[in-house]
Amino acid sequence: MLLRRVGDACRQDDGVPMNKFANTPQPPYYAVIFTTVKSENQAGYEEMNARMFELAQKQKGYLGIESARGEIGLSVTYWETLDDIANWRNHAEHLLAQAEGYSTWYQAFATRVCRVERDNFYQK
Amino acid sequence: MLLRRVGDACRQDDGVPMNKFANTPQPPYYAVIFTTVKSENQAGYEEMNARMFELAQKQKGYLGIESARGEIGLSVTYWETLDDIANWRNHAEHLLAQAEGYSTWYQAFATRVCRVERDNFYQK
Repeated sequence: MLLRRVGDACRQDDGVPMNKFANTPQPPYYAVIFTTVKSENQAGYEEMNARMFELAQKQKGYLGIESARGEIGLSVTYWETLDDIANWRNHAEHLLAQAEGYSTWYQAFATRVCRVERDNFYQK
Repeated sequence: MLLRRVGDACRQDDGVPMNKFANTPQPPYYAVIFTTVKSENQAGYEEMNARMFELAQKQKGYLGIESARGEIGLSVTYWETLDDIANWRNHAEHLLAQAEGYSTWYQAFATRVCRVERDNFYQK
């Protein structure tokens, strides 16, 4: 069994596929797990999602995002501190996006704010 | 804007779509965020994944799972305590599955163990 634990090394790795993961620092740091079920009306969603992705990256304390969609959507954003998460949640343009999410795009969602206690990275 | 924060109510809700989310208790509880990039060889993966899903549900402290796959895979399992996570990680049959994951199914992965500090649920 070829087994290589990457640890710190991966954090500086620009290669594939490690760059598909959020480039997070040593714990502790914070994660927001956002789980969604979409409604039928997705008008304007893609543009707003792209805009929020662009905007989030400019926020203080933003560390990265990982997301995937199947029957449900899962997006995890990573942040340096709880204050950074609060600031992003209350960002004026993000509040407008959230309002659209409530009213239009999501049938249901869950948000969970977490402290990342430890992590591990592996790459062949 | 129709806005209904569900809070505790959703936790007992068997309706759609809340049952697509993990039925977690009041925080604090724990989450393991498992982010993956698959390799080309997926022989045996589906059977093992189904078996691990079945087995995890029987473990002490297991609270639920949420998962989706796109360019990357994201699976979040929820647990009552860090000990429950350690017990599952060291479960004999799960160790065999992990070995296959390292050697065969995954090109790269990240695991992050988190303490869920707060959560919120919304349903139309």
